Amino acid sequence: MSLIGTEVKPFKAQAYHNGKFIEVTEADFKGKWSVVFFYPADFTFVCPTELEDLQNNYETLKSLGVEVYAVSTDTHYTHKAWHDSSETIKKITYVMIGDPSHTLSRNFDVLIEADGLADRGTFIIDPDGVIQAVEINAGNIGRDANVLINKIKAAQYVRNNPDEVCPAKWKEGAATLKPSLDLVGKI
Amino acid sequence: MSLIGTEVKPFKAQAYHNGKFIEVTEADFKGKWSVVFFYPADFTFVCPTELEDLQNNYETLKSLGVEVYAVSTDTHYTHKAWHDSSETIKKITYVMIGDPSHTLSRNFDVLIEADGLADRGTFIIDPDGVIQAVEINAGNIGRDANVLINKIKAAQYVRNNPDEVCPAKWKEGAATLKPSLDLVGKI
Amino acid sequence: MSLIGTEVKPFKAQAYHNGKFIEVTEADFKGKWSVVFFYPADFTFVCPTELEDLQNNYETLKSLGVEVYAVSTDTHYTHKAWHDSSETIKKITYVMIGDPSHTLSRNFDVLIEADGLADRGTFIIDPDGVIQAVEINAGNIGRDANVLINKIKAAQYVRNNPDEVCPAKWKEGAATLKPSLDLVGKI
Amino acid sequence: MSLIGTEVKPFKAQAYHNGKFIEVTEADFKGKWSVVFFYPADFTFVCPTELEDLQNNYETLKSLGVEVYAVSTDTHYTHKAWHDSSETIKKITYVMIGDPSHTLSRNFDVLIEADGLADRGTFIIDPDGVIQAVEINAGNIGRDANVLINKIKAAQYVRNNPDEVCPAKWKEGAATLKPSLDLVGKI
Amino acid sequence: MSLIGTEVKPFKAQAYHNGKFIEVTEADFKGKWSVVFFYPADFTFVCPTELEDLQNNYETLKSLGVEVYAVSTDTHYTHKAWHDSSETIKKITYVMIGDPSHTLSRNFDVLIEADGLADRGTFIIDPDGVIQAVEINAGNIGRDANVLINKIKAAQYVRNNPDEVCPAKWKEGAATLKPSLDLVGKI
Amino acid sequence: MSLIGTEVKPFKAQAYHNGKFIEVTEADFKGKWSVVFFYPADFTFVCPTELEDLQNNYETLKSLGVEVYAVSTDTHYTHKAWHDSSETIKKITYVMIGDPSHTLSRNFDVLIEADGLADRGTFIIDPDGVIQAVEINAGNIGRDANVLINKIKAAQYVRNNPDEVCPAKWKEGAATLKPSLDLVGKI
Amino acid sequence: MSLIGTEVKPFKAQAYHNGKFIEVTEADFKGKWSVVFFYPADFTFVCPTELEDLQNNYETLKSLGVEVYAVSTDTHYTHKAWHDSSETIKKITYVMIGDPSHTLSRNFDVLIEADGLADRGTFIIDPDGVIQAVEINAGNIGRDANVLINKIKAAQYVRNNPDEVCPAKWKEGAATLKPSLDLVGKI
Amino acid sequence: MSLIGTEVKPFKAQAYHNGKFIEVTEADFKGKWSVVFFYPADFTFVCPTELEDLQNNYETLKSLGVEVYAVSTDTHYTHKAWHDSSETIKKITYVMIGDPSHTLSRNFDVLIEADGLADRGTFIIDPDGVIQAVEINAGNIGRDANVLINKIKAAQYVRNNPDEVCPAKWKEGAATLKPSLDLVGKI
Amino acid sequence: MSLIGTEVKPFKAQAYHNGKFIEVTEADFKGKWSVVFFYPADFTFVCPTELEDLQNNYETLKSLGVEVYAVSTDTHYTHKAWHDSSETIKKITYVMIGDPSHTLSRNFDVLIEADGLADRGTFIIDPDGVIQAVEINAGNIGRDANVLINKIKAAQYVRNNPDEVCPAKWKEGAATLKPSLDLVGKI
Amino acid sequence: MSLIGTEVKPFKAQAYHNGKFIEVTEADFKGKWSVVFFYPADFTFVCPTELEDLQNNYETLKSLGVEVYAVSTDTHYTHKAWHDSSETIKKITYVMIGDPSHTLSRNFDVLIEADGLADRGTFIIDPDGVIQAVEINAGNIGRDANVLINKIKAAQYVRNNPDEVCPAKWKEGAATLKPSLDLVGKI
Repeated sequence: MSLIGTEVKPFKAQAYHNGKFIEVTEADFKGKWSVVFFYPADFTFVCPTELEDLQNNYETLKSLGVEVYAVSTDTHYTHKAWHDSSETIKKITYVMIGDPSHTLSRNFDVLIEADGLADRGTFIIDPDGVIQAVEINAGNIGRDANVLINKIKAAQYVRNNPDEVCPAKWKEGAATLKPSLDLVGKI
Repeated sequence: MSLIGTEVKPFKAQAYHNGKFIEVTEADFKGKWSVVFFYPADFTFVCPTELEDLQNNYETLKSLGVEVYAVSTDTHYTHKAWHDSSETIKKITYVMIGDPSHTLSRNFDVLIEADGLADRGTFIIDPDGVIQAVEINAGNIGRDANVLINKIKAAQYVRNNPDEVCPAKWKEGAATLKPSLDLVGKI
Repeated sequence: MSLIGTEVKPFKAQAYHNGKFIEVTEADFKGKWSVVFFYPADFTFVCPTELEDLQNNYETLKSLGVEVYAVSTDTHYTHKAWHDSSETIKKITYVMIGDPSHTLSRNFDVLIEADGLADRGTFIIDPDGVIQAVEINAGNIGRDANVLINKIKAAQYVRNNPDEVCPAKWKEGAATLKPSLDLVGKI
Repeated sequence: MSLIGTEVKPFKAQAYHNGKFIEVTEADFKGKWSVVFFYPADFTFVCPTELEDLQNNYETLKSLGVEVYAVSTDTHYTHKAWHDSSETIKKITYVMIGDPSHTLSRNFDVLIEADGLADRGTFIIDPDGVIQAVEINAGNIGRDANVLINKIKAAQYVRNNPDEVCPAKWKEGAATLKPSLDLVGKI
Repeated sequence: MSLIGTEVKPFKAQAYHNGKFIEVTEADFKGKWSVVFFYPADFTFVCPTELEDLQNNYETLKSLGVEVYAVSTDTHYTHKAWHDSSETIKKITYVMIGDPSHTLSRNFDVLIEADGLADRGTFIIDPDGVIQAVEINAGNIGRDANVLINKIKAAQYVRNNPDEVCPAKWKEGAATLKPSLDLVGKI
Repeated sequence: MSLIGTEVKPFKAQAYHNGKFIEVTEADFKGKWSVVFFYPADFTFVCPTELEDLQNNYETLKSLGVEVYAVSTDTHYTHKAWHDSSETIKKITYVMIGDPSHTLSRNFDVLIEADGLADRGTFIIDPDGVIQAVEINAGNIGRDANVLINKIKAAQYVRNNPDEVCPAKWKEGAATLKPSLDLVGKI
Repeated sequence: MSLIGTEVKPFKAQAYHNGKFIEVTEADFKGKWSVVFFYPADFTFVCPTELEDLQNNYETLKSLGVEVYAVSTDTHYTHKAWHDSSETIKKITYVMIGDPSHTLSRNFDVLIEADGLADRGTFIIDPDGVIQAVEINAGNIGRDANVLINKIKAAQYVRNNPDEVCPAKWKEGAATLKPSLDLVGKI
Repeated sequence: MSLIGTEVKPFKAQAYHNGKFIEVTEADFKGKWSVVFFYPADFTFVCPTELEDLQNNYETLKSLGVEVYAVSTDTHYTHKAWHDSSETIKKITYVMIGDPSHTLSRNFDVLIEADGLADRGTFIIDPDGVIQAVEINAGNIGRDANVLINKIKAAQYVRNNPDEVCPAKWKEGAATLKPSLDLVGKI
Repeated sequence: MSLIGTEVKPFKAQAYHNGKFIEVTEADFKGKWSVVFFYPADFTFVCPTELEDLQNNYETLKSLGVEVYAVSTDTHYTHKAWHDSSETIKKITYVMIGDPSHTLSRNFDVLIEADGLADRGTFIIDPDGVIQAVEINAGNIGRDANVLINKIKAAQYVRNNPDEVCPAKWKEGAATLKPSLDLVGKI
Repeated sequence: MSLIGTEVKPFKAQAYHNGKFIEVTEADFKGKWSVVFFYPADFTFVCPTELEDLQNNYETLKSLGVEVYAVSTDTHYTHKAWHDSSETIKKITYVMIGDPSHTLSRNFDVLIEADGLADRGTFIIDPDGVIQAVEINAGNIGRDANVLINKIKAAQYVRNNPDEVCPAKWKEGAATLKPSLDLVGKI
């Protein structure tokens, strides 16, 4: 059984956010959409391009009512240091959670035990704190924030229109399907 | 721990393929790239649009050396019947696996026990039978074959160029990164 | 110990019935006679002839106060699709239960685990929800609705005349036996 | 899971047969068709009519290559005594197994533990010792040997013609179905 | 530890008694002396001579306030049939309990599991339902009712004269011993 | 299940026999008939009369090829002392086993745990070391050696004539029964 | 951990005392000093000399407020018999407990399981029922009542003068030591 | 079960002996008689008088072939220090074992867990390393070396004359008893 | 996980302090700073120099509000004896705890089980009874009280100034660091 | 029991060392002295002063044949980044191990599970890979490299002169103690 449809498990973590250290818990995932974006480690190679891509789309995400949480098993101190020293990371304005205790990485089933690092996993969480989409790539394959945004829009549309479904390749504004008995076997 | 980096578990299943019933096992995943594409049920609503989208890109996928296996907990008889009766499904030329015993759905952790149906999960598997990417959406959100193809290309590039990494939004032909100690903290 | 004399276990299932999707539970088995009629899979070979035979006798069964529930591990969507596409199945007006979660098939001990399909089992259930007769055939042997009806009549006669017994080959209207001490060893 | 498709478990029992006491084991079920016919108790009411009905059809069954084994939890001594004293039972020429140790009744899942008596269960066993059909009725409902014979004929036909299936109500000589992919969804 | 001095365990059984079927429970053993007389099977060889011997002494036993219960693992139906057909058994007027469920045979530790038959055991039970004497013989050795009666008389004498003991070979009317400290080592 | 038909369990014990201390083991029970005769305690009341009665019949028993072993949980020292001081016990010439470790009393299931004393149990053992008859009386009821001798004669007759059975009240020289199918239900 | 300082465990035993049979329990050990004196068996060799020695000092022991309990795994009947027949034991006026159930021997950890006999153990118990001294000798070594009396006097002195200690070889009336910090390392 | 008759368990300990530190193991107990003499603690009150008493008799003990081992849970360093500072202990020439690891105190069942100190226990060990006598006193009661010597002489006499026993109060040179069957019950 | 940050576990011990025996428990560690100073054994070699060094600094430690507890597995009697006989130890005025039961040594994880001695461990405990620093040396390496005092001063400074940290080599009066977000990565 | 005297457990880790990433295992601890120096996290406050202090003494340590391994649960990537960005850390030339999998922190019992960070622990390891000294401070208390060097010198002296011990406050060149029996209690 996948994590789809399950509620985020309790946790408490320190994060770096806009020049401050803050605490984040599962309560922060209630009442708005969230993206939890795991990556293996600060100061590595794919990671900054993915995080930059996410930042470049952060305004769009915020306009959709989505908060973004990047997570690695590094500390929040290291997140700040990376933020201070990297031109790329410096631009980031979303939350960067430190997970040195592996709690979040275990809760989302992305901890690589032997390495103490997280898989490259993205989770879309609805305002009830329930996971709606999962995406995990092997170590050296980057993710695409546009793809993520499309998926969030579909998830939001489905939540707001519970009797409609988003077909493949659905983009905002495109037609949806209204399931009805008559359609069974007709499509 | 996710399924990323693990080998596909043994299974034996009946499938419908181009007018015939065939047997598929984990051995079929060795020596070429595979996509295993779970969907909840035949004769439902999001499913055919997703399957059609996949078919529309099947030639591209084949040119990349990728075989496609769609899987639901329906029987291969039902797959054939759907194929016969639906204009959309009639076009499909890739393999449609029946999983009424839930074996594959359990192996890939996508079985919803209470319903006996699979989550909407996509798995990219390399020629060693090892899972390289996972994507799972909640019930009513469709997938996009273009996104899948981009991810496969990145996975193939990384496999063929083990000392390079594909950054975020990487598209075929775009620049990659060569990890080196000098780059640490420089990006 | 067989299931004879035991009460039907709790379940909740989706079914196709006369152009609608309905929910069926064990509560539906109280207060009237029921036949639960398992078959392996939609769109297969023996099955439609058995189901048609049952439909042909459905009026008789209803006149005896009996409701009929056909069950396979297919979904109710597939049941509808079969209903729509098969000349034979189109005629069916009794309830067709989908059991993709295997709950009912397990409750009645007819699930073939390796296949995820049900044995060809028929169960006669009295108005207390208690199983009075079981019949199970190997895969390719069809059942006969007349035989079923005779058995139901005998079961009903015995229930209404608790101090009589139906001898072998008993048909409605035939003589029954009144067990008495004097008969012991006399027949 | 039902007993259909499983091999008869090992046992050793004493039986009364044509004026002699003989031993019967599971080995006797190999190489010919067998009917194992459980009934609750000697010197009771439904039982003799069922046993007589079976005897009346014993020649037919033998001509089909079928041996018949009636079984109750009485001893073989009691079987002989019943045979000696009852006009009905005196006619019986098939094997009457005594099962006071409950071994066979447990092996075939028909023992009513609280009573130490067997359910009214019939089992058709093929020449490999594998169970092909099961029928069990609640206490006061008799069985019909004609129904049994029809079922045996269907089972034999299917065994001899492994690529055909017997539809519902199939009688000897009637048409069978040859499953083929083209028929899927066509019936 | 033997069963001597222990109370009879609860049971419920059907019995044949003077042309009627009655129910017997452990409550019937309270308030009078009882003999429980196990034998292997109806319609066998030693058994009827033992049962006849018991019947010949039944008046004496009744005059001593003793009820007799013969028990085999046969049913009460078989007991009646034996009673009807055997010149010897026809004379019996004490209770014949059927124990096809093996409950009583297990309670008195005389069940031969492999055979489903009882050992040839006799139990003398006092009016408190407590076992005072046990005798068990291997299969082909008969018992003697006179010996039983002598033992009951001794048991009754001891119960009525709690400060006396019956020496070996004690017969009714013979001298008993009054245990006293002075006798220790003197006999 | 009773001890009837089971082999005597291994033990090693000290005994008093004709002015000497000897060791007795289960090996002594092979190759001849044995009587093991438990009694509660030396220097008590019923016991010496029982032991005297046994001694009075010891010649007869020996002529039947039977050795006698009296057993209590007293030591062999106490057996000798009793032998020395009691006019009755002085006459005894059979073996008196001491069982202070309770081994034999436990092996024959006659130990009263709370008291550390044995029930008044007699066991007849055949030349294979297998128990053929058991008799146990509550504390104050004596046994009768004549009864024992009759039972041994029956047991020996049955062993020597395996196809005959001794009916009730059988005495040496009396007729036996030859079980045959024709006799079933005839006696 | 030894039994020193632990309270005597509950027990109930029969004993021979001055021509009577009495019951003894752990309650008898409260309110006065007790000696529990185990020996292997009545009618053996070291034992009577030890018991006689104890009797010769019984008046002295009683004058010290001490009751004496001799214990073996023999019965109280055997104790009486030994008392009656032995010139030595006849003199004994203290309590002789029978322990055939091994309860006391187990409570005081002196049971030799393989033999069912007690070790030659002496226990001094204070008026609170707490064990103050233990002495156990191998089988053939006798004990000395004078040594026992000296030890009891020392134990009584210490109990009455809790701030003094009895040095080695202390005899009644001799000097004791008053422990004080100044003495540490000074003796 | 007591330690009487059991072999000393393996151990390795440091000891102070005549101005040297030596190692002692269970092997040292083989081939000669040993006394193991536990006491609670160095620099306490009863202890030195006991140890001095033992030293005063050490020549006698040595002449009997006995080695003496005093043991407390103190270290061998503390033993030396006590030896150096105490006029009493300075005289000691036997072995003083340090048992700070509690190994020996546990092996001889004299450790008081709550205190980490040993009970005041004396053990006589024969040349096979088998314990022949145990004596344990509560905390403030001293022991007497004369008593110990008498017991060792009796133990040695019994070992050298296995067919004789030392009666109570036996002193060297006194008569012993030769157990024989004739003596049973005669003493 | 180390003991740092954990509260001292409950214990009760006897100690020698300024010519008296006193009891010490974990309650004594509340309300002031404590040093618990384990050493292997009294009357050994490194130990007295370490204990003397500690005494030489005891006034300083007391002026810092610190109580000192030296602990070995010796008894408090031995501590007194050492104090009496050693010129070095005589000077000691802090508490010397005896731990023969190994309770404290186990609580602080410094017991060497095989030897029954403590490792050379020092623990600094704050006024809440919480361990703030641990130092353990192998057997023959001495500790330095100056180092201990510096560490206590740093611990006290940190406790009194919770928002400052003591850098490496910090000595009383030296500058501390005030952690602030701005300093991250700046030092 | 502490880690003193135990061998370092197996591990494999990535480290940053002089501009390269290297692998370190327990094998690297054999054949030379090692210091393993845990600290909580890169980019924090006490840590850099401690690490700088260690670097300032690194030449001295190397001249003593000691290699230094600093360890935190950060990755080796983060170590490099800290090295690149901090003036203090830039100077470091010893090995900086990354322990994101917590393996080493667990092996040395310094992992704070709730935080995923290591305690501030220092371990001195001899050329056999055996731990000789442990020092752990609570979070905000720095360590002093001079103290460490003194302790290493003492450990080396003791290893090279196994029959001498280093007293408290021992500094290189100072007198040591030669333990001898005569010294016991003399210091």
